[in-house]
Amino acid sequence: MTEATRPDGRTPTALRTVRIQRKYTRHAEGSVLVQMGDTHVLCTCSVEDKVPSFLKGKAQGWLTAEYGMLPRSTHTRMDREAAKGKQSGRTQEIQRLIGRALRAAVNLEKLGERTLKIDCDVIQADGGTRCASITGAMVAVADAVQTLLDSGALTESPITQYVAAVSVGVVNGQVVLDLNYDEDSQCETDLNVVMTEHGGFVEVQGTAEGAAFSRAELNAMLDSAGAGIAELIRQQKAQ
Amino acid sequence: MTEATRPDGRTPTALRTVRIQRKYTRHAEGSVLVQMGDTHVLCTCSVEDKVPSFLKGKAQGWLTAEYGMLPRSTHTRMDREAAKGKQSGRTQEIQRLIGRALRAAVNLEKLGERTLKIDCDVIQADGGTRCASITGAMVAVADAVQTLLDSGALTESPITQYVAAVSVGVVNGQVVLDLNYDEDSQCETDLNVVMTEHGGFVEVQGTAEGAAFSRAELNAMLDSAGAGIAELIRQQKAQ
Amino acid sequence: MTEATRPDGRTPTALRTVRIQRKYTRHAEGSVLVQMGDTHVLCTCSVEDKVPSFLKGKAQGWLTAEYGMLPRSTHTRMDREAAKGKQSGRTQEIQRLIGRALRAAVNLEKLGERTLKIDCDVIQADGGTRCASITGAMVAVADAVQTLLDSGALTESPITQYVAAVSVGVVNGQVVLDLNYDEDSQCETDLNVVMTEHGGFVEVQGTAEGAAFSRAELNAMLDSAGAGIAELIRQQKAQ
Amino acid sequence: MTEATRPDGRTPTALRTVRIQRKYTRHAEGSVLVQMGDTHVLCTCSVEDKVPSFLKGKAQGWLTAEYGMLPRSTHTRMDREAAKGKQSGRTQEIQRLIGRALRAAVNLEKLGERTLKIDCDVIQADGGTRCASITGAMVAVADAVQTLLDSGALTESPITQYVAAVSVGVVNGQVVLDLNYDEDSQCETDLNVVMTEHGGFVEVQGTAEGAAFSRAELNAMLDSAGAGIAELIRQQKAQ
Amino acid sequence: MTEATRPDGRTPTALRTVRIQRKYTRHAEGSVLVQMGDTHVLCTCSVEDKVPSFLKGKAQGWLTAEYGMLPRSTHTRMDREAAKGKQSGRTQEIQRLIGRALRAAVNLEKLGERTLKIDCDVIQADGGTRCASITGAMVAVADAVQTLLDSGALTESPITQYVAAVSVGVVNGQVVLDLNYDEDSQCETDLNVVMTEHGGFVEVQGTAEGAAFSRAELNAMLDSAGAGIAELIRQQKAQ
Amino acid sequence: MTEATRPDGRTPTALRTVRIQRKYTRHAEGSVLVQMGDTHVLCTCSVEDKVPSFLKGKAQGWLTAEYGMLPRSTHTRMDREAAKGKQSGRTQEIQRLIGRALRAAVNLEKLGERTLKIDCDVIQADGGTRCASITGAMVAVADAVQTLLDSGALTESPITQYVAAVSVGVVNGQVVLDLNYDEDSQCETDLNVVMTEHGGFVEVQGTAEGAAFSRAELNAMLDSAGAGIAELIRQQKAQ
Repeated sequence: MTEATRPDGRTPTALRTVRIQRKYTRHAEGSVLVQMGDTHVLCTCSVEDKVPSFLKGKAQGWLTAEYGMLPRSTHTRMDREAAKGKQSGRTQEIQRLIGRALRAAVNLEKLGERTLKIDCDVIQADGGTRCASITGAMVAVADAVQTLLDSGALTESPITQYVAAVSVGVVNGQVVLDLNYDEDSQCETDLNVVMTEHGGFVEVQGTAEGAAFSRAELNAMLDSAGAGIAELIRQQKAQ
Repeated sequence: MTEATRPDGRTPTALRTVRIQRKYTRHAEGSVLVQMGDTHVLCTCSVEDKVPSFLKGKAQGWLTAEYGMLPRSTHTRMDREAAKGKQSGRTQEIQRLIGRALRAAVNLEKLGERTLKIDCDVIQADGGTRCASITGAMVAVADAVQTLLDSGALTESPITQYVAAVSVGVVNGQVVLDLNYDEDSQCETDLNVVMTEHGGFVEVQGTAEGAAFSRAELNAMLDSAGAGIAELIRQQKAQ
Repeated sequence: MTEATRPDGRTPTALRTVRIQRKYTRHAEGSVLVQMGDTHVLCTCSVEDKVPSFLKGKAQGWLTAEYGMLPRSTHTRMDREAAKGKQSGRTQEIQRLIGRALRAAVNLEKLGERTLKIDCDVIQADGGTRCASITGAMVAVADAVQTLLDSGALTESPITQYVAAVSVGVVNGQVVLDLNYDEDSQCETDLNVVMTEHGGFVEVQGTAEGAAFSRAELNAMLDSAGAGIAELIRQQKAQ
Repeated sequence: MTEATRPDGRTPTALRTVRIQRKYTRHAEGSVLVQMGDTHVLCTCSVEDKVPSFLKGKAQGWLTAEYGMLPRSTHTRMDREAAKGKQSGRTQEIQRLIGRALRAAVNLEKLGERTLKIDCDVIQADGGTRCASITGAMVAVADAVQTLLDSGALTESPITQYVAAVSVGVVNGQVVLDLNYDEDSQCETDLNVVMTEHGGFVEVQGTAEGAAFSRAELNAMLDSAGAGIAELIRQQKAQ
Repeated sequence: MTEATRPDGRTPTALRTVRIQRKYTRHAEGSVLVQMGDTHVLCTCSVEDKVPSFLKGKAQGWLTAEYGMLPRSTHTRMDREAAKGKQSGRTQEIQRLIGRALRAAVNLEKLGERTLKIDCDVIQADGGTRCASITGAMVAVADAVQTLLDSGALTESPITQYVAAVSVGVVNGQVVLDLNYDEDSQCETDLNVVMTEHGGFVEVQGTAEGAAFSRAELNAMLDSAGAGIAELIRQQKAQ
Repeated sequence: MTEATRPDGRTPTALRTVRIQRKYTRHAEGSVLVQMGDTHVLCTCSVEDKVPSFLKGKAQGWLTAEYGMLPRSTHTRMDREAAKGKQSGRTQEIQRLIGRALRAAVNLEKLGERTLKIDCDVIQADGGTRCASITGAMVAVADAVQTLLDSGALTESPITQYVAAVSVGVVNGQVVLDLNYDEDSQCETDLNVVMTEHGGFVEVQGTAEGAAFSRAELNAMLDSAGAGIAELIRQQKAQ
């Protein structure tokens, strides 16, 4: 395979331009606008001093996530889920993924009987919104935890490790990192990977969009994702 | 009544700092971030080449609006309406108001058989979100109409006049313009006014929160609102 | 402007024939059939010995309202909201208005930890159902409070003042009071006003249906509404 | 079994006082307030010039029914189904019964491609609301059909026979006709019967509330119901 | 009337082949697959150690039932009710019937503060699913009660009598027992009967599908149902 | 790592006993009961001669899937989704996965303008229901396609390859294949793999339940899954 030119001129192993703005809105304990190129997601983390009923009295906390897209974050307007009266299967799948990914970053016993509620709302979409949500939410969680440390509500951080996520795919036979919407629409395989700062896997979700993919392709995609996530975690910590 | 100091130092007749950013997101035909002090609302206007079924074949267009608040736009997190499975009465009331207000700015026959869909999503709330939504949506509508003129889909603008909105209230016996959240929470009377650039009334919605209000108070509030709206329309057009 | 003849022969300042029948049904603590011409609304007030959770332990009561239209109260049959599975935005807007209006008549601290639940169900509609609902509900609330006084549950009435409501509009350039359906359908401006027996404003909701309305028109409408409400309160008390 | 005194002094075979008021509201093609003692139901029949999609092009009409109770038609207030967002199983069961019963009275081919929509709304409840609904709806259907004959839309009535309904039960070992709420609450067996003017059965729905009932009891109940329905049909036709 | 041949060769008074398999699935306290010819229903009975809130502290238990059809249990696929977001009126009517029928078999005081939850899920449908559900659920309840006796949670069985159900109809003028789908689709009258092992009636639900039915037909149908149910109860007990 | 004994005595690389029963119910074009040990799922495939609106006129077919669990398929009874009025996020996630997996087996252009609707209903659950659903649905699809070939509706099979699915996990540090419920509840990592008969990957979904997993563990799990799926496809074809 020769290296095909990507639509936006990136090399196959390049992330889009990453921008992580903290304290983006005033009220949330953590509030981060994460931009991966033209994908912009507002990630907030709210602290609530209670836990869901299935955890009451168990001396541990909880972390959960919700996800939404503004109706015109996309090329053509999507119906508003609040107006339709239900969240789509895709929305639920994504918010369950975000929650599982971030729970891997937090020791829920150390968090105490409180809940971290993450909201990821897509302001503008250009592919990779679920991965951007996870990467941004990690920083929002860190900021929310810091408010608990600052106020003395916690004396030790419950964050055990950072996590970040990136998509990787096979487009025209070539493995490319961090797909934008155009690439995502034409890729043969789409893999979303969530990893820790120590290089462990939290989630691996690969789907053959067209033909099935081979073990060799899977390995190449995992290699590329690993390098991308290491860079993302560096940027999360650089803020 | 002596002039009490307002919490943020404004005089009773002063608007908060107004900022209107056009082309805030890429995909919508009109996309405006309007800021009235700490109230930030993203207003988009999408053009759809169809009309609701009750208008089919009637040689006219339609304009409708939806409104939402991001869960953590507020001091404490609100439940996400998409997750609850329905929009609150307050949400529906506000989006009906926005739609009526903006329809007063557009000649629907001249618009042709297409729909302007407005989405007002509150990113950060500090009082006055419905009025900010109307003021921002007016600019988003103007930008969306411009895309139709630019593409030749329309040869004449269907916009007949600009509209803007502001709240005014009585706090501690004094009429104050453009209430923020703190003032809104303690005001005796709350009046939302939508007016045209020619000084006509489109909507007047006044509610006594505590004691009933007098005709004199109503008159004073209407005077203040009129001055505020004239300034807002000047700023809409200055963009 | 000369005085145009109204469709039903009324003068511009005349209310429709008002009829207020108390004890219309047996079970409710207050039950009133209010008729404004051909608009007939059954207003009941039920007493419940509990308050919503947000008021528990706050030593005060609550008053809330629900509104509905029988499917064939209207010229053409409307879908039943219970069958559709949700209340329309219009329904929610109206029941929120009725609740706010009646809370202005009741001292909730004096009511004690109980809830007054108002139900306004339109049996036959000919315009002005929301105003008729408020006017009728006031009498139903008074009757329900009387049962609490009669039983000794209350020793002092929590009713601080009577409220009533009327619509007023501009039809063919003329201000007319208490619009029926035909007038409502063709009016340029529609204003609903809720006032107390002392002449204070509780709610003012004006909407330009076509062209914007002027301050002079607003003033003329408020004058007419004030006279109409004074008469309505006289009739409420005459029962 | 000796004849026990009934709570309201009726003999075991006596109906409650029946009152059938036609043209009770203005807009519906048929509008009937039926009163069986303290049970009051407003039955309207609306004519729509279309049929459900499963009948399109089949050269026949349709008849369907909906049922509801006003929230305070009952001793203690019931939640409003429109606010809860769904109709109860009981409501659906009753409206399906009313529809089946009335379809037995109408030749749907002769009705042509139109729908008769029945709405039965309980204004005040004291037992037997489903039977009263059927009895009243029959007259509303007859009036609606008459408007079609009067306008020339139909030249021959599609009504083939009248139907009416009554409840009968066993209370303290005695068969009693047309139970009110008190009797209904304590009866051992509850039987709802719908019959035609020719004495044929349309529906028989019997439920043992406590002990199972015998064939002899069933026979006695059917005899009593037959006599009651004959009287009801006489009253329907006397209007 | 001569005896017409039935589609599957049965005599008018013959049940379809009955098969009752106990312990069909592992987890439920009672789990029965009942087969009436080609109608197959899985009936489970689950024991829960709590009662609905309206029974709390009343020293009695409860029994309730739910019913569903697998989407392709029928000739053409039905929409899945979970995907549509609501149970149909027919489903609710049937599950209410199953609950009432089985409560007639159980002394709820003797059951203690626990709930028997019956689930009847139709695996394959060929008419008579509600009756098969009741007949099968009776055995599932008996097995669930036996687990309570075996564990010592109960020392005496709360089952007072067995119940079973069968449909009977008039097809081409002839009374036939236990209708399959083809017969059900063309019958003039359809009667579902629930009886106890002592021959008492628990439910009688008859509907004229075409012409009204006579007292003589009703009597003949009840005779046939009685014989069928006696045989079904023999088979329930033979397991 | 030494090889720990598995709860049911299997070796780490052993599947549970697989049983695939075709023609399990009568009405569906394909109907398969698949059993993986104590996990039993009924998979039907229905053929519908239409496509969703987004595919109309595009000369291709569609395949979609729905999934459900009978309320007492599980150790403790789950609420019925049809009664709750919505499908859980987990249900939607699984049915989306089943649909994607089976679409990889079918050439939708060759299928023509028709839809294959898969229903996977869990009769009894003991872990691995989503994988069993995919494996069983493959056979149901093959049978449904055969009916189209037999009737002449299709002349060439649109099935391009078989797919099957299996779960694999790390339990106590050891990679084990085809986890049952007990193993699933205590595993550190859970990986669901869908592969084709040619060894290509269709879906790879791995989740760290506790600690993150390493690349070496992922490789070992993929090896085990590949062997298991080869065996499953052999069994699918042996039917």
